[in-house]
Amino acid sequence: MSKKNILRVIKIGGHILDDPMRLSKFLSAFAQLPDAKILVHGGGKLATQLANELGVPQTMIDGRRVTDAETLRIAVMVYAGWINKQLVAQLSALGCPALGVCGADGDVLRAHKRVHPTIDFGWVGDIDLVNTTILDSWLGRGLIPVVAPITHDGQGQLLNTNADTIAREIAQALSKAFHVELIFGFEKSGVLMDMDDPDSSIDLLNLAKYKTLKAQSLISDGMIPKLDNAFGALEKGVRRVVVGQAELLTELLAGTVGTTIVL
Amino acid sequence: MSKKNILRVIKIGGHILDDPMRLSKFLSAFAQLPDAKILVHGGGKLATQLANELGVPQTMIDGRRVTDAETLRIAVMVYAGWINKQLVAQLSALGCPALGVCGADGDVLRAHKRVHPTIDFGWVGDIDLVNTTILDSWLGRGLIPVVAPITHDGQGQLLNTNADTIAREIAQALSKAFHVELIFGFEKSGVLMDMDDPDSSIDLLNLAKYKTLKAQSLISDGMIPKLDNAFGALEKGVRRVVVGQAELLTELLAGTVGTTIVL
Repeated sequence: MSKKNILRVIKIGGHILDDPMRLSKFLSAFAQLPDAKILVHGGGKLATQLANELGVPQTMIDGRRVTDAETLRIAVMVYAGWINKQLVAQLSALGCPALGVCGADGDVLRAHKRVHPTIDFGWVGDIDLVNTTILDSWLGRGLIPVVAPITHDGQGQLLNTNADTIAREIAQALSKAFHVELIFGFEKSGVLMDMDDPDSSIDLLNLAKYKTLKAQSLISDGMIPKLDNAFGALEKGVRRVVVGQAELLTELLAGTVGTTIVL
Repeated sequence: MSKKNILRVIKIGGHILDDPMRLSKFLSAFAQLPDAKILVHGGGKLATQLANELGVPQTMIDGRRVTDAETLRIAVMVYAGWINKQLVAQLSALGCPALGVCGADGDVLRAHKRVHPTIDFGWVGDIDLVNTTILDSWLGRGLIPVVAPITHDGQGQLLNTNADTIAREIAQALSKAFHVELIFGFEKSGVLMDMDDPDSSIDLLNLAKYKTLKAQSLISDGMIPKLDNAFGALEKGVRRVVVGQAELLTELLAGTVGTTIVL
């Protein structure tokens, strides 16, 4: 078997999108990465702010936003519009030829409206298909995909989709062709042993330890879906998952900061 | 010289984007066009509506929107976000593999902030460069570019740019490699001889007649920049320009409706 090329799938979300200094530091490091790379971004505070300004009430269930028609419009405008195009313009200025897409572009992420026995999440999509052919062709032309957390159902309907899940699904799908490293960048220094101590991040978390910590309620609620995505990705062929502060991307990849997730 | 392949650059704007029935009719016809094609879209009423809802006052000078920072954010959200992604999702549902882009994506449209001796138009961009290489590569892969009227300056700044001008610049730039037909689709049946009579459109308008009509103030103010773009494109190698109702795309291309512009 020939040696696979490295591909980094890097997800950023949360506070970094609202903090120009940290974002700029992250983008400089991202632009300089020599290997193939894909950026997946979440939303930051802007969608909530816009919903407030427009008087569109927001409902959260289990940490997930319920997406009515107005909220979908806001999500598409903010995620696939403002945030995505700002990131693309800034990367382009750094000499990094970026291509901002949502799941409908090139049919890159096909999803279906979430089916749930008791809760109607609205226009939320669960991913069915990652179009690796089109991603490959963009990467092959030297374009860096910048993916907004919006998918489509192939019938003309846009859907709101969790950015961590998108990063995981893309990483998994491309792990047949690439040696994939998946980085979840956010505002914390990694997986914290003590939620009140930002310096308590652990270097390494394996599945057995994760289960123990979860049983002891030592993993924060917001962290659980991220770590479930991390372990799921490793089980599906992703070679390495690291969680930590996005703007320390170089150090995260070097393994000197953040939490490395292993099976 | 070998025979060039046909490429249609089709611009839609105005009322059709606010009218789901007419839009759907247009998109069906567009999806069925057999040759290479690029869709360029404007904004419709949504940007103005959103500006009103958010209390951002809008200033128009000579029919052009002055783009302050808040208005730019609205334009990017509405044009490159909601409208662009809705069009892409609907085209995808029609079996037409669309790729929604603004000028920053793949550095496809590079512009500079407008310099004007007396008026500050704000974050408005005038186009310097159309990246024909990247457009060619997307077309070559069977992707249909759907272009939002937002450009960038290559330094990280997004800019608001007139969609008619974008359509013209793309059409001109690709006319070296393709036999380009440029269609300006809007709500009127063509160039009207009597502005109050929607059935008064003329079949053919040449430059001499245009100059005469303009001198007699028989061309509406809103039509003048569109026709200047049309004649400019013909002078720069575009083979055919037709102006008319967007939803009658098939008939416009057949030459049975609309106004054909010739030098």
